[in-house]
Amino acid sequence: MPDRSLNPALRPRSRSIDADALREGILQGDQLQLSRAITLVESSRPDHQQLARELVEACLPHSGQSTRLAVTGAPGVGKSSFLEAFGMHLLQNGERIAVLAVDPSSPRSKGSILGDKTRMGKLAQDERVFIRPSPAGTTLGGVARHTRETILLCEAAGFSTILVETVGVGQSETTVRSMVDFFLLLLLPGAGDELQGIKRGIVEMADLLVVNKTDGERVKLGRQTRQAYRNALHLFPPSESGWTPEVLTCSSTEGTGIPAVAEAVERYRKQMQASGYWTKHRREQARFWLYESIQDYLKQQFYSHPEVKKRLPEIEGEVLEGRQSSFAGAEHLIRLFREAPDV
Amino acid sequence: MPDRSLNPALRPRSRSIDADALREGILQGDQLQLSRAITLVESSRPDHQQLARELVEACLPHSGQSTRLAVTGAPGVGKSSFLEAFGMHLLQNGERIAVLAVDPSSPRSKGSILGDKTRMGKLAQDERVFIRPSPAGTTLGGVARHTRETILLCEAAGFSTILVETVGVGQSETTVRSMVDFFLLLLLPGAGDELQGIKRGIVEMADLLVVNKTDGERVKLGRQTRQAYRNALHLFPPSESGWTPEVLTCSSTEGTGIPAVAEAVERYRKQMQASGYWTKHRREQARFWLYESIQDYLKQQFYSHPEVKKRLPEIEGEVLEGRQSSFAGAEHLIRLFREAPDV
Repeated sequence: MPDRSLNPALRPRSRSIDADALREGILQGDQLQLSRAITLVESSRPDHQQLARELVEACLPHSGQSTRLAVTGAPGVGKSSFLEAFGMHLLQNGERIAVLAVDPSSPRSKGSILGDKTRMGKLAQDERVFIRPSPAGTTLGGVARHTRETILLCEAAGFSTILVETVGVGQSETTVRSMVDFFLLLLLPGAGDELQGIKRGIVEMADLLVVNKTDGERVKLGRQTRQAYRNALHLFPPSESGWTPEVLTCSSTEGTGIPAVAEAVERYRKQMQASGYWTKHRREQARFWLYESIQDYLKQQFYSHPEVKKRLPEIEGEVLEGRQSSFAGAEHLIRLFREAPDV
Repeated sequence: MPDRSLNPALRPRSRSIDADALREGILQGDQLQLSRAITLVESSRPDHQQLARELVEACLPHSGQSTRLAVTGAPGVGKSSFLEAFGMHLLQNGERIAVLAVDPSSPRSKGSILGDKTRMGKLAQDERVFIRPSPAGTTLGGVARHTRETILLCEAAGFSTILVETVGVGQSETTVRSMVDFFLLLLLPGAGDELQGIKRGIVEMADLLVVNKTDGERVKLGRQTRQAYRNALHLFPPSESGWTPEVLTCSSTEGTGIPAVAEAVERYRKQMQASGYWTKHRREQARFWLYESIQDYLKQQFYSHPEVKKRLPEIEGEVLEGRQSSFAGAEHLIRLFREAPDV
């Protein structure tokens, strides 16, 4: 690598995007350059995508050293205040934090950066923290890919904890599970009702359940909820990691229970690194994403094929009415895809 | 349709398979013809597949009227004895029963028909019962497709309850869930331990949990287990159907609790048919299988492409070692698929 690449200012300027400057900026922890790089990752323009690909590949050798942590919970459970309290605690422990939001369903625009910065006010003001909202108007597949690439860029920029917040309540949790090391589910005091907003299967995915808002008059109820989940969880199958999910209580506003959450995450990390599961899990995720991406790209090409687009609604209708089987319908469409010329 | 098709004996014989005879045989409830048709469905020979497709399409208008019920549980939970007791009870209620096994991982051969007939001895002897083991050496995708087509054929043959038994303990439950109306999970008395063989997420998929082997010295423990699961389940999110999963006890050997299981299934059917969920769910499943099949066929064509087969191991290795990202690896392979000529 020639010396001039180390100092972008020494290179001739052009109106095109300066990929070297972005890479160097990221590796030096420059949040502005990191933001620009993520914007490239999120762009649908082919030239941007090409640049983004190269950037991600260039950052890959510098990534992987962080703890990747998903935080989810139904609306109203207090995710923002928890992230703020938990994040501030991590800063005291010397961490650098990136908060990424995953919200495929929402029509939030880039303006929501402001929203995120407001709802996590103290965190947002700290220069050791990087907050990035979910891109607007993208499918889950798109968000998943962007988020995973963004995690790699954030790691290359030196962030030691990546908090991936799932804002949606749909399938996004399963997708996010496949890109993090640890899955934290927030609950409210009071059994059952607060789960209305969560899909089935989410509780069993969690490595840690935290009953948030366990303060004031809700302390007793919060503890009861904790006990109820502790009783329930041992009826459920153990995870592949051998880790037994814990149930804790906390109050994000009072700060109680927050250090214990960080300790549980740390305990998990140490145990899994000692057992080798940490690395094994990451490799499995990389393999999963390879095959997931192949599938994504294949689908993209199939569903954007003009003949497929034209005939799909009619064939789907026939399948739903029972006039042809799902298999015959699929075969018909695949034949169109393979035989009709692509535009 | 000319008359001669109604009586296969009147038609000129050929050494090829007689699709009309198969169809007519199925519609008349002829188990031998049904078996032959399923063998076609399971065959990988292109001419067999073509015939199978036509048969399934011909049977489609005569299918759909059964209750499709999955029965699963860890090894040792007593699935065979439960199916025998439950099946005998259904026969008394005037049902005709097909039992299909889904077991993608097992190397069981067709010889296992004998095994199935032995382990469900009384059921197997009844002419109102059709038992079909899982085909050998097939992937989950293959088994799923075969099983779904087999369900349609069995319905056309007049079976009113289709019991889909998942023998494996892996991903097959999720797949089976998407082809049945009702999901029944068998448990053993004694909390927790028996779930070692079940994957996470399965408990939450169940519409009914039945603590089997609640007899003799295990009656008290069985009831405690039932209560523990009742307490636990209300901590989990409600299903989309609005149905609250029930927990029952039974003894397959003594026959106690078996009628209550049948009543719960019947109650579910009535409620869901009244609410419209029954039909809605079936339509969603048909749509799901359309898109699932498209994906299956696309994958099939991709992974059998010679260039992809040649380069995949090397590229996967690089992704696992972190030498390229999952996305770059996927893009590389897709390029090979689209650019290199197919053989």
